[in-house]
Amino acid sequence: MKNYSVAVAGATGAVGREMMRMLKELNFPVGELFLLASSRSAGKKLKFGDGEIEVAELSKNWIEKNRVDIVLMSAGGGVSKEYAPLFKARKTYVIDNSSAWRMDKDVPLVVPEINPHTLKKDSYIIANPNCSTIQMVHALAPVHRISKIIRVVVTTFQAVSGAGQKAINELKDQTKKIVDGNFAEIELPRKNFSAFPNQIAFNCIPQIDVFLEGDYTKEEIKMVNETKKILGDEISVTATCVRVPVFRGHSEAVNIELEKELPVELIREVLAKEANISVVDDISNLKYPMPVSAAGKFETFVGRIRRDVSRKNCYWLWVVSDNLLKGAALNAVQIAKELIKII
Amino acid sequence: MKNYSVAVAGATGAVGREMMRMLKELNFPVGELFLLASSRSAGKKLKFGDGEIEVAELSKNWIEKNRVDIVLMSAGGGVSKEYAPLFKARKTYVIDNSSAWRMDKDVPLVVPEINPHTLKKDSYIIANPNCSTIQMVHALAPVHRISKIIRVVVTTFQAVSGAGQKAINELKDQTKKIVDGNFAEIELPRKNFSAFPNQIAFNCIPQIDVFLEGDYTKEEIKMVNETKKILGDEISVTATCVRVPVFRGHSEAVNIELEKELPVELIREVLAKEANISVVDDISNLKYPMPVSAAGKFETFVGRIRRDVSRKNCYWLWVVSDNLLKGAALNAVQIAKELIKII
Repeated sequence: MKNYSVAVAGATGAVGREMMRMLKELNFPVGELFLLASSRSAGKKLKFGDGEIEVAELSKNWIEKNRVDIVLMSAGGGVSKEYAPLFKARKTYVIDNSSAWRMDKDVPLVVPEINPHTLKKDSYIIANPNCSTIQMVHALAPVHRISKIIRVVVTTFQAVSGAGQKAINELKDQTKKIVDGNFAEIELPRKNFSAFPNQIAFNCIPQIDVFLEGDYTKEEIKMVNETKKILGDEISVTATCVRVPVFRGHSEAVNIELEKELPVELIREVLAKEANISVVDDISNLKYPMPVSAAGKFETFVGRIRRDVSRKNCYWLWVVSDNLLKGAALNAVQIAKELIKII
Repeated sequence: MKNYSVAVAGATGAVGREMMRMLKELNFPVGELFLLASSRSAGKKLKFGDGEIEVAELSKNWIEKNRVDIVLMSAGGGVSKEYAPLFKARKTYVIDNSSAWRMDKDVPLVVPEINPHTLKKDSYIIANPNCSTIQMVHALAPVHRISKIIRVVVTTFQAVSGAGQKAINELKDQTKKIVDGNFAEIELPRKNFSAFPNQIAFNCIPQIDVFLEGDYTKEEIKMVNETKKILGDEISVTATCVRVPVFRGHSEAVNIELEKELPVELIREVLAKEANISVVDDISNLKYPMPVSAAGKFETFVGRIRRDVSRKNCYWLWVVSDNLLKGAALNAVQIAKELIKII
């Protein structure tokens, strides 16, 4: 079996670290592994397997001097816009976790269980969908195959780790101060904030990312547009995205309208058969998906599957997955595994 | 002005204490105030104004021996089923915070801003709606008046105080243990739990109250049925109710479908004019309703008002209010103030 030289760009971030771990966990055939980050993190050493690898600075110069087959990139949209084309020019495949390329019509937006066929030998830039989109479409795709989904109304409960390591630290710090009784009332909204414009501990913030057209947030628009790109333009989608004081694991209350009626039991069946989906829907034993039970796991968990009593052909799903794994690093490495089948 | 002899039944609970405070805050004309609770709490002394009142045991005997005009009751459904008829037999008005009487066709289910006219001189038992219902219908009623609401799809983010003082303590204890690093992994679901069947700290639990028909929880069915009773049977409602690690303040992502199209600006206007509603929808300054900013406040806060891009005549509202105040104690005392206008 051929080995591939792989780089992780953004290696020191919350997703970057999980990307390295997923390369091992999924036995990806890594030849040489390069770790790249901003100048601030260059020189740090990170563990990989039994050894350590020094982080190099991602730069034009580095790209020109090194030969890499595949880059897993999670370094933000700006970095991706700048460097992905340089890798591409060197015929290096870029699997990018930012939103920079997702809606580009020449860029495949891939969830390997759904649309691996969109990967092409000559598409050097490949986009990993948004975390909240991946787990939702993963749960919707098997239903969509047996009865077309017409409309999706989704409300999300998103973990702080989706906003990176500084957000994790902020929830920890705020919580500790409140529990210790040292939390002076903070100005809301905060003028100079690091991760969140408002208190996140013991709170819900109905804003993820910046506000854009129609008073939707960028996160909400991502869910609308990316879902259509992956499952098909005929699906109408609307979303309200909310940050909750959870470290790891996004939850989603997903209300769907189908073209034709399906027995609930059939929906459970097709979901249970789908690769990497776990149906947890045993309410008599109080079992349903939750962030604390999904954290660290590879699957997308679906439960609370039931009819919507308000309208014909409508159903509810409660979808939970680890946002750093299936929502980011795991999906990226799964894409890489699909990619090496065709290159 | 006449003074009324008032009793608070369930006085030592999270809602009971707020009921006492609301009687003061709303200048309710209290003559004598009785505090009632189970035998376990009888004998305790609670502050009221400058004085202290000893808690008596709620019993058939007590009811027969004392003359009370109005009872504010928050002692659970079982207690209410047993004692409300005894008060009624003595021509004492009962404003009950449990779900025991809400769907009884002879019992008014009242949100004073919406349907005070349903109070009747000879209706001795009056029901306070469920916390999550009150704030939602409060926000929906002014919209419903100008364009009929056809359908409501709601997802809730509910604070632990809705499950009482032991739930507040449980979130505190679990959080402290996790922050201090002493939280051994707990068995999920928990066999012998006090407030929650699963971990609530840093988690979301998609179950509030027991499971009933159609795999809906009792809380979800309450929202469906009570909303219809208050706003009209022609509204279809469906709900997913979720407990989140927030102490105080329920949040709701409410998706509505209207009979006719309305400009978003008009929806904002009618909401802003409505009594006790505060529109917080200044996204350019990152202002929107949140539990931490709604806690302790009397209003229902509405923000994130926008069109649903997935379907004509559909809109989103984000509704937040203090579940112990407008969602319980405040609404009950507001009902009492309406009641004394007609008795």
